[in-house]
Amino acid sequence: MSARSMILNLFFYNPQGDYRFSWRHPDAPEKEIFTLDFYADLARQAEAAKLDAIFVADHVAIWDSIPSGVTHYANARLEPLTLLSALAAVTKHIGLMGTASSSYNEPYNIARYFASLDFLSNGRASWNVVTSWQAEEAANFGLTTVPKHDERYQRADEFIRVVTALWQSWQEDAILYHKQSGHFAAADKVNPIHHQGDFFNVRGPLTVPRPPQGQPLIVQAGSSEAGKTLATRYADLHFTFVRTIEEGLAYRADINHRLAQVGRTPESFKIIAGVLPIVVESDEELRQREALIDGLVPDEMAIDLVSSYTGLDLRQFDPDQPLPPLPESDNFDGIRTHLEQVRQYDPTLSIRELGRRLLKSDSAWTVAGNAEFVADRLTEMFQSGAADGFNLMFPLLPGDFTRFTEQVVPLLQQRGVFHQAYPPGTLRDRLGLSLPQPTLKA
Amino acid sequence: MSARSMILNLFFYNPQGDYRFSWRHPDAPEKEIFTLDFYADLARQAEAAKLDAIFVADHVAIWDSIPSGVTHYANARLEPLTLLSALAAVTKHIGLMGTASSSYNEPYNIARYFASLDFLSNGRASWNVVTSWQAEEAANFGLTTVPKHDERYQRADEFIRVVTALWQSWQEDAILYHKQSGHFAAADKVNPIHHQGDFFNVRGPLTVPRPPQGQPLIVQAGSSEAGKTLATRYADLHFTFVRTIEEGLAYRADINHRLAQVGRTPESFKIIAGVLPIVVESDEELRQREALIDGLVPDEMAIDLVSSYTGLDLRQFDPDQPLPPLPESDNFDGIRTHLEQVRQYDPTLSIRELGRRLLKSDSAWTVAGNAEFVADRLTEMFQSGAADGFNLMFPLLPGDFTRFTEQVVPLLQQRGVFHQAYPPGTLRDRLGLSLPQPTLKA
Repeated sequence: MSARSMILNLFFYNPQGDYRFSWRHPDAPEKEIFTLDFYADLARQAEAAKLDAIFVADHVAIWDSIPSGVTHYANARLEPLTLLSALAAVTKHIGLMGTASSSYNEPYNIARYFASLDFLSNGRASWNVVTSWQAEEAANFGLTTVPKHDERYQRADEFIRVVTALWQSWQEDAILYHKQSGHFAAADKVNPIHHQGDFFNVRGPLTVPRPPQGQPLIVQAGSSEAGKTLATRYADLHFTFVRTIEEGLAYRADINHRLAQVGRTPESFKIIAGVLPIVVESDEELRQREALIDGLVPDEMAIDLVSSYTGLDLRQFDPDQPLPPLPESDNFDGIRTHLEQVRQYDPTLSIRELGRRLLKSDSAWTVAGNAEFVADRLTEMFQSGAADGFNLMFPLLPGDFTRFTEQVVPLLQQRGVFHQAYPPGTLRDRLGLSLPQPTLKA
Repeated sequence: MSARSMILNLFFYNPQGDYRFSWRHPDAPEKEIFTLDFYADLARQAEAAKLDAIFVADHVAIWDSIPSGVTHYANARLEPLTLLSALAAVTKHIGLMGTASSSYNEPYNIARYFASLDFLSNGRASWNVVTSWQAEEAANFGLTTVPKHDERYQRADEFIRVVTALWQSWQEDAILYHKQSGHFAAADKVNPIHHQGDFFNVRGPLTVPRPPQGQPLIVQAGSSEAGKTLATRYADLHFTFVRTIEEGLAYRADINHRLAQVGRTPESFKIIAGVLPIVVESDEELRQREALIDGLVPDEMAIDLVSSYTGLDLRQFDPDQPLPPLPESDNFDGIRTHLEQVRQYDPTLSIRELGRRLLKSDSAWTVAGNAEFVADRLTEMFQSGAADGFNLMFPLLPGDFTRFTEQVVPLLQQRGVFHQAYPPGTLRDRLGLSLPQPTLKA
């Protein structure tokens, strides 16, 4: 393989760790998740380990469609853009990847926030574009139903074109600072974008000049057809879930085909796989961990989740018995993919056990073992070409993350698959990502 | 007067200083206005001087309706929310006041940003609500004309009610962190707001829990009838321009009357006057400064401004002659208040001189003299009750600001009208501002 380093990002949505109920772990943080110090410590530790970026996921609603969600799930959290802007001030090298929705924002605002963050961080900003599929989110922005998948992706496509055009509205050398002559900027290098589209009319130019990276990195995480199309058109990084080398290579072949169709090279596009790395000393420790984690799932929520997925009020049934007959899919007045998901489980499972499995179901690749084992699996996946790097989703923060940085990162560095120091330049420079061509004609 | 300290905020829109052409001053900063270090230095200096807050103004467009605006005016700048979030990490006490538009944002987003900033800063966030009157701004958000004044204020009124209701959607003691029982939050203390209004339908609750200040401070700066009504309904601080004690006392009487009408006390509302403090050693130094500043106004822009205000293409006229006949107001196809403003000047002025005066026209109270003189004027204005404090708008940053903190602040402290140390608590606590009553019924 090439001498290029794998990309390693510290990823989180739940600041207590990636499992839904990590907050109940005896070592999980409590009130400190609402302080800058907690995140500043994580960021400094990530930077000491030379990690490439901190990746903060987001939803623009709390998850309360399940009655017990507010009670049992740790819904409350800080907002990514403000958090990452604060972290820009306490770090020097690490990338700052923040999630923002193309469905519930204005492109002019998003362009400003990320351009400004790019300046504040000296070229370390990155925008993870999401289209926001939850009903709870739509209701916070004036909608009674979630816009259809295709419409959300059409809007995202136009949204990204407007944002990137705004980032290009000041040419790199537009500002002159000629105090004597009174010329602050070269007017022919500061251009309105005059965008008129299906979703947006935006004149420009932006209030923030050309960002240090040329443009902040764009990350896209959807693996649907529309998601992959959007990613290969505009994204620099693509966050996906692959669990085996074969799956990763097949996924990359599909992606490379799509890249070729839009005139892009494989090198211009990094595939980042989600992974849950669990470093343990022994099989016995792993078993104890699993038992502990199992015990954190609240029964009430497991049962409510099955109720929500099936449209049945299961609180009236014995939770230790199997499900009553499921409704027909054709007339189902809920989310049909949820009902189909339930059908795929063993019908003899108890309601409680089914709910626990649904609550724990996770798309990420789990790699559990000692440090050598975890380093081996990541190295293989990377060297095979199945992934350019990993979004590290730790079950428990900061504990599992500390183990990883102390024990696994040095092994990856010894094997030459992860850098020992930050290369110079912006985040874009460091990841070897060239500047995309302009996406929107004026 | 009371033992309460005057409020002193470092205010800026142009990071080079408050005059439109401060960027041309020989000592003005250049590229550094796009680095965090420049603002971190200002913030640390402000904090060392015990200033109450940094107040960052904003527009969501560059000013380019005048052809030479892009060339001669320093339009480019960073975005306030990201900037203030970064400054939260390098300061401990100073308030962080950021401008955000109620016309071109969604209330759910704004509520999240400021609640999150309030946590990141340990209770120092403040939102300056503006309604955005510029045509350039409307065009960046899909509109061909600026919404009418009344409509903008109706939207702002509803916008603030939604934001404050979202800030209250988690009760202060809603989060339990009961790991053993699995109760993260008390569900009856986390409530949707179910707002249905003329401009917004927002369900809630917010993703961010109750902020440390209960709610971030609200600042409002409009002195129109609608502006004063909005301010006295919802704001904690009101930014206005008064130039004399008499004017300030009359303004306060009007405000107090309005506060009484909505059941609020004068103590719950702080009036902050804009002031341009210029510390000089001698009259000769002041004259030299004025001559220097005069020389910074570009002729081309002065003439273009008169063209824009009058609807006449004045580049075709001799700039050293008076204006040609002005158009009738009744059929005027421009901003009528601009045309009326031109009519108020001496009609024998040359086009160039008229434009220079229009460009320099400033609503702020200018106090120029030695440190004793500046401290005297601020003390008088404060002790008379004409203002609770001042937004300090320095002609040149950081130079004039440094002079003020080194020479004027110690005098104000000696006189007992400005605190020697930060009182404990959040920004709201320190300014003696109680928490407003809930503004929106569920």
